[in-house]
Amino acid sequence: MRPRLLTPGPTPVPEETLLELAKPIVYHRTPHFRQALAQALADLQYVYQTKNPVIPLTCSGTGALEAALANSCPAKSKVICLISGRFGERWRSIAKAFGVEVISVSVPYGQDVQPEQLARALADHPDAVAVCATLCETSTGVANDIEAFGGLVAATPALLLVDAISGLGAMKYLTDSWHVDICATGSQKALMLPPGLAFVAVSDKAWKTIERNPSPRTFYFDLLKAREKLGGPDTPFTPAHTLIYALSVSLKKIRVEGIENIWARQALNAAAARAGFQAMGLELFAARPADAVTVVKVPGGLDGVELLNRLEKNYGLKLAGGQDSLKGKIIRLGHMGYIDRFDVLAALAGVELVLLDMGHTLKAGSGLTAAQQVFAQGDKARGG
Amino acid sequence: MRPRLLTPGPTPVPEETLLELAKPIVYHRTPHFRQALAQALADLQYVYQTKNPVIPLTCSGTGALEAALANSCPAKSKVICLISGRFGERWRSIAKAFGVEVISVSVPYGQDVQPEQLARALADHPDAVAVCATLCETSTGVANDIEAFGGLVAATPALLLVDAISGLGAMKYLTDSWHVDICATGSQKALMLPPGLAFVAVSDKAWKTIERNPSPRTFYFDLLKAREKLGGPDTPFTPAHTLIYALSVSLKKIRVEGIENIWARQALNAAAARAGFQAMGLELFAARPADAVTVVKVPGGLDGVELLNRLEKNYGLKLAGGQDSLKGKIIRLGHMGYIDRFDVLAALAGVELVLLDMGHTLKAGSGLTAAQQVFAQGDKARGG
Repeated sequence: MRPRLLTPGPTPVPEETLLELAKPIVYHRTPHFRQALAQALADLQYVYQTKNPVIPLTCSGTGALEAALANSCPAKSKVICLISGRFGERWRSIAKAFGVEVISVSVPYGQDVQPEQLARALADHPDAVAVCATLCETSTGVANDIEAFGGLVAATPALLLVDAISGLGAMKYLTDSWHVDICATGSQKALMLPPGLAFVAVSDKAWKTIERNPSPRTFYFDLLKAREKLGGPDTPFTPAHTLIYALSVSLKKIRVEGIENIWARQALNAAAARAGFQAMGLELFAARPADAVTVVKVPGGLDGVELLNRLEKNYGLKLAGGQDSLKGKIIRLGHMGYIDRFDVLAALAGVELVLLDMGHTLKAGSGLTAAQQVFAQGDKARGG
Repeated sequence: MRPRLLTPGPTPVPEETLLELAKPIVYHRTPHFRQALAQALADLQYVYQTKNPVIPLTCSGTGALEAALANSCPAKSKVICLISGRFGERWRSIAKAFGVEVISVSVPYGQDVQPEQLARALADHPDAVAVCATLCETSTGVANDIEAFGGLVAATPALLLVDAISGLGAMKYLTDSWHVDICATGSQKALMLPPGLAFVAVSDKAWKTIERNPSPRTFYFDLLKAREKLGGPDTPFTPAHTLIYALSVSLKKIRVEGIENIWARQALNAAAARAGFQAMGLELFAARPADAVTVVKVPGGLDGVELLNRLEKNYGLKLAGGQDSLKGKIIRLGHMGYIDRFDVLAALAGVELVLLDMGHTLKAGSGLTAAQQVFAQGDKARGG
């Protein structure tokens, strides 16, 4: 069996993008590169569904979260962190590192933060300068209701900062209509690139806050300096320019397919994955599942680490497990970016075979059949 | 003529490293990746000539400078910045962004900072927590005397922070013997990779200062967090892991050739470049020239921008010009990394032809002859 990468990031990169990465290096302060960068940033605005400028950063997704928070939240200010998993916790850690007071609004792993919880926190803390949220909480497979959060935050002076690292380009997401002020994403998820680039889209409301911030405390991630260079377009420091060229190739694929079509395709793949796992008797972990990653509980009595090891060793299927307290208890199937329905079927088939091998009771083909029925219905609905 | 990239970064990447970058993406939390990372970090210690741990960062070189300074210099502390060009000025900008007081020790562009200047500054400011220096000031082609700086700083409680971004792996540099406390470098220079990775090597003295720093003010660049993960080895956040794999390939080349042999080869290429330019009647810009890049003044009356344009358009030779106040006044020939003597000869030949075309008086072949004599003598000396 050939290897299949089905983790929620890094994700597979299309062959033509990989070939772009193998091209000889060129200099980056040239009209040729500026044109590639300009096109990539325009295409990213399309993926973000925003008219706001998109700033490229050479770092991983966490760097983009740091850029969002460090630029907009002065030392000793207060932020509300909506926490539904490890990545919500990361917002909190970044805020604390920058001496920002954190009001944590948490839910148990597997749940999404309820808009009413945010409404209450905003009422209790009218002095909060920002609300930090996570679109797709990759550690649990939960999708948070960013649209509802945006409606609440827009009515206040606070900014809505969203970690959309593993959701943007994989599931419906409207930066401007949903009133997201700073939206961070990374290259190694639905944008179909290796890790190394990250982006933030910044609203007018956010720029005003950033301009007033007396303590930016970052040089490398200074968004005002980055904005000055956007006219070129250019970047304040040497960018990972070969990744920008590769990004243009991946973004072209997204433009050709159309973002709404991608959302619909990913939603169908996610629905099929959920139906397939459930038909095998596996329980969904996420109360409000994201379309980018499907997370299910390992059946009682089985060792989840062993399950994943056998999937990889026997069938070449690389899925992800749980982290920290969830280690061995869940499996996570990524299906964003360059992963198609037949990869999802391969994953379900592999899980069926390993579960049977480990003594779990199920009818071979039950998961596949359930998933296939979702695809058949989905195709019919789209055709009709 | 085929394109030749001869700028002081980004530099050409070897074909086998490019092919590594075109390989399908794999997951990064695996023994396979940890082994590649461990090997790369060990090979980097060899390139750095250090026993100190080398920390990988996903960012450009400036991010590594920020990591060095933000971790070791508390807010309102004092640093001495040794400034001989744009990259020395960058140290100052980073320090100011972090609220650190800067004592500037400057020399005119083209000069190197004198060790006596540093001795005086250390005597005048015994409370300085760090001295920020630049090995190869890429903007002017100057090599600063890091060995002498290290001897002076080691006798004080201050740390020596060195930007070795465009010098490490290209010219003789001994991190430990020269008492460098934090040494930053980037991937896109002598390490023969695209931009996107950076590294810092951190001494015991520096770790002690970092551990005591009450205001680290960075999350993404937190070196203590990075050190915790080195045991794996692992990284706190998703690294640019495809670049790490590619780095292993480039580092293998360095190991095979041997770092002393690389220094000698680059020194010879640099000597040949200098001799060639001087034989054409061009004046060296750097008082103490670096072996990584050769910078010469554009002859009076000629337009340096036009010279570089013709080199690229007519001969495929991409050299760099001056920045800001030096724009049009100097040309910069990079010869570090995957650039060999025949590329240097190609550059000299191109400059001869363009100068003739622009009306400058010189004998065709004079630059080439002078360079070739340096190579012949160098080869004889090494063989003898």
